[in-house]
Amino acid sequence: MARTTGSHSDITGPRIREAALQLFARHGYAAVSMRRIATEVGVQAGALYNYTPDKQNLLFSLMQGHMEELLQARADRGLPDTAMAQLEDFTRFHIAFHLQRPDAVFVSYMELRNLDEANFATIEGLRRTYEDQLEQILQNGVKSGLFTVPDTKIATLAVIAMLTGVNTWYRSGGRLSVSEVETIYWDMVRKAVAAA
Amino acid sequence: MARTTGSHSDITGPRIREAALQLFARHGYAAVSMRRIATEVGVQAGALYNYTPDKQNLLFSLMQGHMEELLQARADRGLPDTAMAQLEDFTRFHIAFHLQRPDAVFVSYMELRNLDEANFATIEGLRRTYEDQLEQILQNGVKSGLFTVPDTKIATLAVIAMLTGVNTWYRSGGRLSVSEVETIYWDMVRKAVAAA
Repeated sequence: MARTTGSHSDITGPRIREAALQLFARHGYAAVSMRRIATEVGVQAGALYNYTPDKQNLLFSLMQGHMEELLQARADRGLPDTAMAQLEDFTRFHIAFHLQRPDAVFVSYMELRNLDEANFATIEGLRRTYEDQLEQILQNGVKSGLFTVPDTKIATLAVIAMLTGVNTWYRSGGRLSVSEVETIYWDMVRKAVAAA
Repeated sequence: MARTTGSHSDITGPRIREAALQLFARHGYAAVSMRRIATEVGVQAGALYNYTPDKQNLLFSLMQGHMEELLQARADRGLPDTAMAQLEDFTRFHIAFHLQRPDAVFVSYMELRNLDEANFATIEGLRRTYEDQLEQILQNGVKSGLFTVPDTKIATLAVIAMLTGVNTWYRSGGRLSVSEVETIYWDMVRKAVAAA
């Protein structure tokens, strides 16, 4: 059976996204032209515009895709019964998920400044949804007396920053497995929010 | 008395650094030309090259200056007697210092990838020196039984990531003063490393 245009796009799209993500992560969004992305993929610049209207849309689509994948992966796990088990699950999930996508994580943080206002608001909304899930866990734990947190919103941002920080130093094949790293961070997170 | 060339440079240098830092933070190093920096300062591009041999050197000098200022500010404070007081002092200092320099902090993280190998090694060395100071505090606390930390190196990186994360959300004039933010983070840091 002959390939349809649709199936051709299905192959080219992921290659464009992969190339754009790598180039944005390495050189920064502003320094990477659509022509350069096309060269990397091995297609004419025109083929890129069949896939995305412009570079801004491509950046937004990458960041939106990253956040939606994050929220979907969370939803697929379901929620353990107790706030303590929920917090441990969140901690381990966050580290493992982000370690698997270093370029997407880096671009999502670094290129927020290059999003149009409407696109920025959408990405911030998705990010807020994710943060709210952790804050809900912390609030559940405070309510049941398991956790003591002076400010659940700030604790949420503190825990997420701590966990995402793993991406700046972890190298696979080093002295620690991902699972060992998860356990070390879980020990610190658990204590940081523990009831006094 | 007539101005000397020296005093002219003394004025231009800081303006070049300030403009470069802002432009790098807003658009990224790769997207900002020396010509653009010169335009921002209001001098000819040639005047920039009297101050710095090239853009790489300018980036390196900004990041090195930031790290040396950080280490000097730490050294100027002296060290409290107990590991607990040292850790509180480090926590409060780190938050306040970094909140005062958002552009330098952002560029220092984001543009590591754009440093030449030798420059990268120098910046990493300065960063390591700073991290080692916190790790020493944690080791002192573990030795004296005040702290329980599964891995002092990882705890060091976790605490620094958590504290630097304040830069991503804090806005002056919001509901919390810097001092209040310091206190909330100190509560979490103290508990995260507390003896079990």
